[in-house]
Amino acid sequence: MGKYCIGVDVGGTTVKIGLFTDQGELKDKWEIVTRKEEGGSYILSDIAASIEEKLVAENIEKTNVVGIGIGIPGPITADGTVLKCVNLGWGVFNVADEVKKLVGIDNVKVGNDANVAALGEMWQGGGKGYQNMVMITLGTGVGGGIIIDGDILTGSKGAAGEIGHISVNFTEEDTCNCGKRGCLEQFASATGIVKEAKRMLLVSDKPSKLRDLQYLSAKTIFDAAKEGDELANDLVDQLAKYLGIAASHIAAVIDPEAFVIGGGVSKAGRILTNRIKENYEKNVMFALRNKEFKLAELGNDAGIYGCAKMVLN
Amino acid sequence: MGKYCIGVDVGGTTVKIGLFTDQGELKDKWEIVTRKEEGGSYILSDIAASIEEKLVAENIEKTNVVGIGIGIPGPITADGTVLKCVNLGWGVFNVADEVKKLVGIDNVKVGNDANVAALGEMWQGGGKGYQNMVMITLGTGVGGGIIIDGDILTGSKGAAGEIGHISVNFTEEDTCNCGKRGCLEQFASATGIVKEAKRMLLVSDKPSKLRDLQYLSAKTIFDAAKEGDELANDLVDQLAKYLGIAASHIAAVIDPEAFVIGGGVSKAGRILTNRIKENYEKNVMFALRNKEFKLAELGNDAGIYGCAKMVLN
Repeated sequence: MGKYCIGVDVGGTTVKIGLFTDQGELKDKWEIVTRKEEGGSYILSDIAASIEEKLVAENIEKTNVVGIGIGIPGPITADGTVLKCVNLGWGVFNVADEVKKLVGIDNVKVGNDANVAALGEMWQGGGKGYQNMVMITLGTGVGGGIIIDGDILTGSKGAAGEIGHISVNFTEEDTCNCGKRGCLEQFASATGIVKEAKRMLLVSDKPSKLRDLQYLSAKTIFDAAKEGDELANDLVDQLAKYLGIAASHIAAVIDPEAFVIGGGVSKAGRILTNRIKENYEKNVMFALRNKEFKLAELGNDAGIYGCAKMVLN
Repeated sequence: MGKYCIGVDVGGTTVKIGLFTDQGELKDKWEIVTRKEEGGSYILSDIAASIEEKLVAENIEKTNVVGIGIGIPGPITADGTVLKCVNLGWGVFNVADEVKKLVGIDNVKVGNDANVAALGEMWQGGGKGYQNMVMITLGTGVGGGIIIDGDILTGSKGAAGEIGHISVNFTEEDTCNCGKRGCLEQFASATGIVKEAKRMLLVSDKPSKLRDLQYLSAKTIFDAAKEGDELANDLVDQLAKYLGIAASHIAAVIDPEAFVIGGGVSKAGRILTNRIKENYEKNVMFALRNKEFKLAELGNDAGIYGCAKMVLN
């Protein structure tokens, strides 16, 4: 009988759980609701109960489970302590110890959700074959995960890979959620590109099909760009410019093999990675040129893959 | 009898060699000339001969030498291969293997000189007590060394920590040695601040004692700033602004505990670290605030300390 591992990706609305073989095959995945009542105090026991139920149903002994990996949308230290997680209502406590007690499995690893997604993409997704890579997730915000020698880089306070808050524009007047100005997230997230589109439509007199749309989104902007709309292309160029600059900063620090671009905005496809790479090459020194820019492949499953991989590392 | 380790810092003019106890005490240090003739082919045999001689003189058996660490002014991969080193006339070869053969000691580690200096400062200098730190060396250029969990981060092609070539100014017209524009090195190195001083003295009509100096240097500029010279303070502010921005980018990637500032420019003292820190705090998100900014303490010996520490890690 083979060995299994379990990946648990805790989100603000649902918890995704995946049952994997230790060879990286996803055997089953399911979701439970994230109960945020009473400071999120039911979340971990709900997860434990759901795992127990699945193991019984699949007739899997706990001794055949290598471990449980858990991804949390907040900063996590190397020993599995969450340092507040507003989305879940959590304060500061050791998540790993709590899950060990609840499930009775000793190998429990906890990571930040953006970091575990990076590890998942390295294991079975767009970053397969690389040991040093950076995942950039372009969603509502811009998240990052850094993989060094096949493992997550956590940082001294769990804030490594917070690349959405790299300053890329020093004349920006709007304030980012983090309180600063000019953050990458302000321009390169799904929210950011729509905000920029609205701003540009007001100040520019270029004709654009974006003017006729009732609903602007990252998708409609990229679709218009692909059809040759000039203003939409200006928006994509700006997003790619700032991502290329941020990637060049990241490379000067850690010199990775590849960047993997994920999140909703990455559905735009190769137009996105090609344009980021062009801007990257313009902004790095010779020794850092010719990195790979790949699209993420695991979508919303990246988290459970990475969680499972954490316990195998 | 105690154990020893040897640190060898290979520079373009001299090779510095240090004999250390494995507890980090420097017992002896000396220098030999770097013979660059014939593609630098004598350098390693000269080093081997000098080490043999010292061990005989000090009556130390090779079995009591834990290892030899070597710092090279060029990119080095994790296995000790140098990827060209123009300063020494070297092409691509495995330095570690060569030194093992020449000296007959098996534990030989090779690192980039900026990286080993960072490790040295972590071990016995300004970074003592930290396991995750960044050293920024402000000399003729701007070098960097990244320490993660007590060890050097090399990068996939040996170019991690090349922070002098982070773009910090997108309107700069001069070209950096690396071929790009707007690199940190253009503003924050000893050479850069003098170049900027000359430029500012031409375009500004502010009175300044810098105008009366026959010879401008980083030291004369910082001295004038400390005495309240406004233009000199503008120059220091600009240097600190760009270093603060670069440090904020670095922090968003790796979340270190501390930055250690070294190199000739760092002789300016706390005025430098204080102003960099002010600018850093303005440019980072909340989770990354309150990092330490320390001055390097080992001066030109940082390299031999770091080389020795490499073989103990």
